[in-house]
Amino acid sequence: MSSSPVQGKALLNVGVVGAGRMGSFHAHHVASRISGARLYALSDAKPEVREAMAREHNLDPSRVFEKWEDLIALEGLDAVVVTVPTRLHGVVVRAASDRGLAVFCEKPLCLTVAETREVLEVVEKNGTPLQIGFMRRFDSGYARAKELILQGKIGEPTIFKSISRDPFCPPPAFADPSQSGGLIVDLSIHDIDMARWLIGGEVTQVSAEGALRVCQAIKDLGDIDNAVVNMRFDNGALGNIETCRHAFYGYDIRSEVLGSKGGLHIGVLRHTPVLLMTQEGGVQHDVTPYFKERFGEAYRREVQDFVDCVREGRAPAITGRDGLLAIEIGAAATYSARVGGRPVTIESIRAGLPAADDAVVQGAGRPIASV
Amino acid sequence: MSSSPVQGKALLNVGVVGAGRMGSFHAHHVASRISGARLYALSDAKPEVREAMAREHNLDPSRVFEKWEDLIALEGLDAVVVTVPTRLHGVVVRAASDRGLAVFCEKPLCLTVAETREVLEVVEKNGTPLQIGFMRRFDSGYARAKELILQGKIGEPTIFKSISRDPFCPPPAFADPSQSGGLIVDLSIHDIDMARWLIGGEVTQVSAEGALRVCQAIKDLGDIDNAVVNMRFDNGALGNIETCRHAFYGYDIRSEVLGSKGGLHIGVLRHTPVLLMTQEGGVQHDVTPYFKERFGEAYRREVQDFVDCVREGRAPAITGRDGLLAIEIGAAATYSARVGGRPVTIESIRAGLPAADDAVVQGAGRPIASV
Amino acid sequence: MSSSPVQGKALLNVGVVGAGRMGSFHAHHVASRISGARLYALSDAKPEVREAMAREHNLDPSRVFEKWEDLIALEGLDAVVVTVPTRLHGVVVRAASDRGLAVFCEKPLCLTVAETREVLEVVEKNGTPLQIGFMRRFDSGYARAKELILQGKIGEPTIFKSISRDPFCPPPAFADPSQSGGLIVDLSIHDIDMARWLIGGEVTQVSAEGALRVCQAIKDLGDIDNAVVNMRFDNGALGNIETCRHAFYGYDIRSEVLGSKGGLHIGVLRHTPVLLMTQEGGVQHDVTPYFKERFGEAYRREVQDFVDCVREGRAPAITGRDGLLAIEIGAAATYSARVGGRPVTIESIRAGLPAADDAVVQGAGRPIASV
Amino acid sequence: MSSSPVQGKALLNVGVVGAGRMGSFHAHHVASRISGARLYALSDAKPEVREAMAREHNLDPSRVFEKWEDLIALEGLDAVVVTVPTRLHGVVVRAASDRGLAVFCEKPLCLTVAETREVLEVVEKNGTPLQIGFMRRFDSGYARAKELILQGKIGEPTIFKSISRDPFCPPPAFADPSQSGGLIVDLSIHDIDMARWLIGGEVTQVSAEGALRVCQAIKDLGDIDNAVVNMRFDNGALGNIETCRHAFYGYDIRSEVLGSKGGLHIGVLRHTPVLLMTQEGGVQHDVTPYFKERFGEAYRREVQDFVDCVREGRAPAITGRDGLLAIEIGAAATYSARVGGRPVTIESIRAGLPAADDAVVQGAGRPIASV
Repeated sequence: MSSSPVQGKALLNVGVVGAGRMGSFHAHHVASRISGARLYALSDAKPEVREAMAREHNLDPSRVFEKWEDLIALEGLDAVVVTVPTRLHGVVVRAASDRGLAVFCEKPLCLTVAETREVLEVVEKNGTPLQIGFMRRFDSGYARAKELILQGKIGEPTIFKSISRDPFCPPPAFADPSQSGGLIVDLSIHDIDMARWLIGGEVTQVSAEGALRVCQAIKDLGDIDNAVVNMRFDNGALGNIETCRHAFYGYDIRSEVLGSKGGLHIGVLRHTPVLLMTQEGGVQHDVTPYFKERFGEAYRREVQDFVDCVREGRAPAITGRDGLLAIEIGAAATYSARVGGRPVTIESIRAGLPAADDAVVQGAGRPIASV
Repeated sequence: MSSSPVQGKALLNVGVVGAGRMGSFHAHHVASRISGARLYALSDAKPEVREAMAREHNLDPSRVFEKWEDLIALEGLDAVVVTVPTRLHGVVVRAASDRGLAVFCEKPLCLTVAETREVLEVVEKNGTPLQIGFMRRFDSGYARAKELILQGKIGEPTIFKSISRDPFCPPPAFADPSQSGGLIVDLSIHDIDMARWLIGGEVTQVSAEGALRVCQAIKDLGDIDNAVVNMRFDNGALGNIETCRHAFYGYDIRSEVLGSKGGLHIGVLRHTPVLLMTQEGGVQHDVTPYFKERFGEAYRREVQDFVDCVREGRAPAITGRDGLLAIEIGAAATYSARVGGRPVTIESIRAGLPAADDAVVQGAGRPIASV
Repeated sequence: MSSSPVQGKALLNVGVVGAGRMGSFHAHHVASRISGARLYALSDAKPEVREAMAREHNLDPSRVFEKWEDLIALEGLDAVVVTVPTRLHGVVVRAASDRGLAVFCEKPLCLTVAETREVLEVVEKNGTPLQIGFMRRFDSGYARAKELILQGKIGEPTIFKSISRDPFCPPPAFADPSQSGGLIVDLSIHDIDMARWLIGGEVTQVSAEGALRVCQAIKDLGDIDNAVVNMRFDNGALGNIETCRHAFYGYDIRSEVLGSKGGLHIGVLRHTPVLLMTQEGGVQHDVTPYFKERFGEAYRREVQDFVDCVREGRAPAITGRDGLLAIEIGAAATYSARVGGRPVTIESIRAGLPAADDAVVQGAGRPIASV
Repeated sequence: MSSSPVQGKALLNVGVVGAGRMGSFHAHHVASRISGARLYALSDAKPEVREAMAREHNLDPSRVFEKWEDLIALEGLDAVVVTVPTRLHGVVVRAASDRGLAVFCEKPLCLTVAETREVLEVVEKNGTPLQIGFMRRFDSGYARAKELILQGKIGEPTIFKSISRDPFCPPPAFADPSQSGGLIVDLSIHDIDMARWLIGGEVTQVSAEGALRVCQAIKDLGDIDNAVVNMRFDNGALGNIETCRHAFYGYDIRSEVLGSKGGLHIGVLRHTPVLLMTQEGGVQHDVTPYFKERFGEAYRREVQDFVDCVREGRAPAITGRDGLLAIEIGAAATYSARVGGRPVTIESIRAGLPAADDAVVQGAGRPIASV
């Protein structure tokens, strides 16, 4: 990457675009938990959100905007954290890139393969530092696993396994597949990124089975609440990802990698190191309630690393290409689940699916998010 | 089942047909760890095995045979434990059934769906008490899981997951797929039985990806050493089974069931309750070396239950139909892995696969064990 | 040990003296789970117990006795398992020894140091094979710990820790300290044996604090339901044992040994390898209900080893001296708890406690079991 | 507490007194991880430390001092974090108190009971907000345990257990008991605070056994490297603390509380949620290397809470009295270990120990830190 004006700045001026669930979390980190950056500005459509954020972070009202376009245009801004709804990622990232800002974008970059490609072309042309929010690479567990693999402790990776379970049936507004990309893209995209990262190879083919079992509220939206996805990698490795929305017992994220000489698990169901033992409950421990509790520190570290990269002129570790490959795989798996588990190659996703298949998808009366 | 002459006998005379790895283990249990039965006779082709077993169990030489046919014909025999090589299961079980003996047969009943059906016809016609050696149903962990599911603790089962990993690359003599049924049938048949039992439904479709990564010795035999198998059940549940031959760290058997209200794991990697902590090794514990250490007590209990069933005139809990369904699913998964992961319905296995598919299989220059 | 008439016998004739909770458990093992021995006879004061045991084990009525004296006198008997109430251990063991029988005696050998010494004199004079029921030495966990220590994995042992918690407040009939020896002798004697065995040294001094917190029913008997015991060993190691009667959540037995190079835990609270996860309960697993579930196999193995020793003319691994040292330490700790935590040397127990101390004990209006 | 000038300030000016191991850690938190405060100034005797800290935190050189007296006198300073060597705690805290600053002081407040009392008199007279660095109260594990106890989940607490093991033999400069207070005060003071906090009662008597087994370097200093401490509480509960310097496998901190209805563990040896499985190592996981990795977040939270308390005019949760009681108990246990395990009441520590005992202590040729 060529050196940029912000490179070497003692304090990066960061704007947060969209201060909802994720945006306010990132804003909190930028404001008081990150070195080398400060929360300079933010935008959000909701007045009560703007007011609360301004108060919490002592933000100058002149730098709190209703429209993201105004934030992007702000003088002195160096970088943005993009946390608007996913369907707006593309337009915001393009505008920020054209404006010369460094961009951190929440996952997924876009909901369709086509739009993702268009955005990446703009970003590449502009030479924009872009990082995708695959925060698991900054989690102490996943990072340690990667390190052990690179040290050769398990030999050549041969099988990747992963589970991502959310602890509640989402309301339709939240889980509408035309907004979320559907179950697999919404919940498993982190597993997909981990699969590529930990196996050290590229997925060539997937096949998936999906089902709607519990969350009736999203049935009419045409989404599923359970899926299992088989994967084949270009280096001969295999994989399986399972995802589910209704793990009411807690947020359950676990992965494992088996290799030619050993294996490893990354797993944590325990929220604290406390075990409670009672006559009624046997031995019990709390389960991590949700993603902020499980990955809070990883969310902080990924933004710290983004800030460090921008200030030091290094390329971010998680690139737009990582974002593209993940959405291609997610699209292929979503499509496979729609057509009864038929294997779908990533190549065929890149080539565009044949009309017959497309008809199946459209015939179901619902958009398949990413094809 | 109609009452039989052996029903109510104080001590069942049991013969062990084939005293190899499994046969000698069952013989040990029958001889000194089972009540209501005694080790009455055995047969084995190898003179040194016969001699060793006779000495260990104080067996009358007149009841130790070279040929299984002679054992079957023995006066006073009530039941047999069939532990000859799998390709001989069919002929031995049929003969024992015709002779009026109760039969406990190691898994799988036969290597092909067709032969399994033929055997079951004979068994049914003769009214033979027949139990298949799916010993996990008698393991304290799996049995407790079943109990918790029946109590409604996890609601309606929605996802079944299972891992079966063997700790060594087998020599070709042992893992020849024409003898073993291939990786999936050989190692995952217990997972398949657990899938049906714990989900409480029938598998309707599977798709599998397989690979040969480490065990080069079996490459020329056309077998694989890794597989992942997706499953769909008639009640809407999904599943995935993973199996691998080269988990050199130990014998690793784990399962989990997710339901509409909760989930459960059945997992034990720990061979003893001992944790060792050293500067070099962090915290370490031994892993179960192999199946006798993990399921030893379950192997004893399954034979005890068989003996109890025969003596009390109850039908065994694990029937010939369980054996048939397991081999059908195993055959479908093996076939799917051969044809690039294409979904295969159990119905199509029952109907016989189309000629085109058959050509694919035969064209690979190797018999696909169970189709 | 000189060779005895029973040495080399194919099948040892074993009599069980007292068929209560422990006696019936041992009888079951001798009858159907032990090789080289058979359940030849038994005695019990209660007619319904005698009847039930005779029926369960197909015992000839002529070998089922009301009085233990008659069992001891039985022709053809080779060995006895002594499971009468502890206060009778001494008289039965002496009689069996004089009669020339091999003796397996449940722990503790006797309730007082003095009587233990008298019994051992008789046993030694007669050359009786005597084994004390410290079954933890045969538990796979504790045995593995010993093996790792002997292999030098943790260096020189420096600290021994142990917890023994019973899951219920006992009724006075069962926990009367004049019958049980009091909390420490009753529940911690196995920890005391493990301390000596795993540290590989002898306890020289103990100090103990005790309290009555929950089990009011035994308050009037002068016993306690909680204790912590510090220990000092002749090789410089330290130790602590904790014991409690009211761990209503389950039977909780754990130990650990820290050494100069590492450490190890022996711990198992999990009754099965099943984890249950629910919205109400977090992650839960069952706790071992009681001692038969935790140590059942160790109870079988200790009797198997006793039988093997007797048949092969080897000295049993756990000697009368082990029984004596354990009761000396238990007596010292019980005494320390009575006198406010004052350190008590084992030497002083051997020398007899001074009159002043004795007054303290007697003055409390209750017998201190083992002094 | 009466309102103070700093109460309500948006940003507290905090000075760090002594920027060694602990001071630099706290300075990092104050500088970039704490809200409502800023790192305003610091002092340290070593020029290279001052230079490094100034550079790292962009500190104005005019607010970086060699002498703590100059820091204390600085205009605009609101509060200090006292992290000089323990023997200087008293003089610094008194000076800061007299100067009207709020004070956060690392544990232990002072090494002797007498000096601790003197300091507390000054602090009380001045109405100084004073918080002692017992950071475990802010650890998610210990805090959750406290919460469960307050909810009545385990009934009335009856036994407290705790282990604190350091992972290396310290050099004499670091572990000199005249500087550190000796093994028990240095390593177990957190366990002592947890004992009082979780049991919800006061310790009345302790007895301790200590030994020097591995760390020869501190032998000549008269310190020990192993200890076990029994405790008796005023509400009838019992306890035991174990501490050791040579747990080379890692930093091992675990506690448990047993109650009348259940129990709980607080334990974490696992540094990450990663399990590694290899043929050589069985199942392994990393152990927490040291205190910053185990309690880093708790160290941050305790200072955050101190800042919040000062700004909001609330009294800090951990008072000078907590510091005094901990040092009294630590002194009693240290003394008991010196005199062969004799029980020592906290009352006797308060009253001053008799001359005879004092002679024992002095006669050993070394100061007993806290008596």
